[in-house]
Amino acid sequence: MQRYFVNKEQISEQTITLLADDAKHIQKVMRMNPGDRLICADNEGNVYLCEIQSLESDCITAVIKKQLEENAELPIHVTIVQGLPKGDKLEFIVQKGTECGARAFIPLKAERSISKWAVNKVDKKLSRLKKIAKEAAEQSHRTYIPEIGRPVSIDQLIKMSDHYHKKIVAYEETAKAGEQHALPKILNEIKANERLIAVIGPEGGFSPEEVQKLEQAGFTSCGLGNRILRTETAPLYVLSAASYHFELLKRGE
Amino acid sequence: MQRYFVNKEQISEQTITLLADDAKHIQKVMRMNPGDRLICADNEGNVYLCEIQSLESDCITAVIKKQLEENAELPIHVTIVQGLPKGDKLEFIVQKGTECGARAFIPLKAERSISKWAVNKVDKKLSRLKKIAKEAAEQSHRTYIPEIGRPVSIDQLIKMSDHYHKKIVAYEETAKAGEQHALPKILNEIKANERLIAVIGPEGGFSPEEVQKLEQAGFTSCGLGNRILRTETAPLYVLSAASYHFELLKRGE
Repeated sequence: MQRYFVNKEQISEQTITLLADDAKHIQKVMRMNPGDRLICADNEGNVYLCEIQSLESDCITAVIKKQLEENAELPIHVTIVQGLPKGDKLEFIVQKGTECGARAFIPLKAERSISKWAVNKVDKKLSRLKKIAKEAAEQSHRTYIPEIGRPVSIDQLIKMSDHYHKKIVAYEETAKAGEQHALPKILNEIKANERLIAVIGPEGGFSPEEVQKLEQAGFTSCGLGNRILRTETAPLYVLSAASYHFELLKRGE
Repeated sequence: MQRYFVNKEQISEQTITLLADDAKHIQKVMRMNPGDRLICADNEGNVYLCEIQSLESDCITAVIKKQLEENAELPIHVTIVQGLPKGDKLEFIVQKGTECGARAFIPLKAERSISKWAVNKVDKKLSRLKKIAKEAAEQSHRTYIPEIGRPVSIDQLIKMSDHYHKKIVAYEETAKAGEQHALPKILNEIKANERLIAVIGPEGGFSPEEVQKLEQAGFTSCGLGNRILRTETAPLYVLSAASYHFELLKRGE
């Protein structure tokens, strides 16, 4: 069933109001009519099954039929810190990483990032990534829309990383050296609702200095299997592994 | 180090000859010179460390320094059967699925596949996918290039599936119903060097009839975590989970 994230102010006791792009999508793309059903989520953990009551061009009223008990979220909070990649790869990472359960994305201005964000384009880029995250969260039936952070430097990243229970960095040289135990060890140690921060290098990988800084700040270097993954594939591996570990193998229960 | 797949005829006892696109890539993109090193793989399990001896415009001779012992392959053979998706998504799946360790890809003409391959374009499409698989295998340091099969119907798929030890189908309705035990159970049962076939639906998913046919033929419906994955994300989840299971958790040893 089609799902839309709405703001808290759009929700009253018995009805939900859908506006702007959502109202357009419901009418123009989904071609819904009164009586059709949809799901609304408030991005604070509440999910409602609703039935459309009335449609106007930019405002749709839906009656709340019942509140749904859903569990579409990974048991741990994963933040993906992504070395700024080339082209539109970050859009890809946000879309696919949202499907795979990430709770936040933070772009990292890494030493070898070829892509740089011009200061006057940061807000536009962030708002586009937020839109992609919202749509992917709707499509993959998430309860929460992942947050998109402003780009950080490695030193800013290290400062903010104190707020996480476990910290990992995917480092190609570690992968090449055959290091395979670190990720399962971390996933075995982390508990439900705790926060994992996973840092992924850009196309050229991290410099040895960057990795040293991260390791000194308590980040664990992890290998991600026996093959060299591209920068945009590595976060999906980390998220899929976390899902497999907690949701399928049911470890950590 | 840069890696190239070469045919057996290009390998003599002491030297390897690199031709055509590879020769061009070495000179124009990598700007290599005599004395520079590269890796050659024969797609039959042999991998060589080589040193460039001489460069001509379309022929490069490299001396074999030593044979390498490598293990970049998943311990099980995974074949991804992909319901024909829209646009260039199959190219994406082949590229990323190769990085994640798939041994073969087979396009499936599913009932709800919107994309159809015109008969006179099949060879061109396959040769493009093979090129993508070769390049991704080189970049991710694979020992083998995944095979690309010709598109099959569901009935052809069922006939050929006898050759696999384990057979799964990723079915959205199964995922919605919260089925989470099937994939770990299969991965626990399958042994090293055995063959797993994983069938993924197109954008609209499989029809109930298709799933019924597959289940009757011994395919197990698997959920892939608590979120709804797009058709192009599902194969990467299966492959990442298999890598995590065998290469990181070291199950199956």
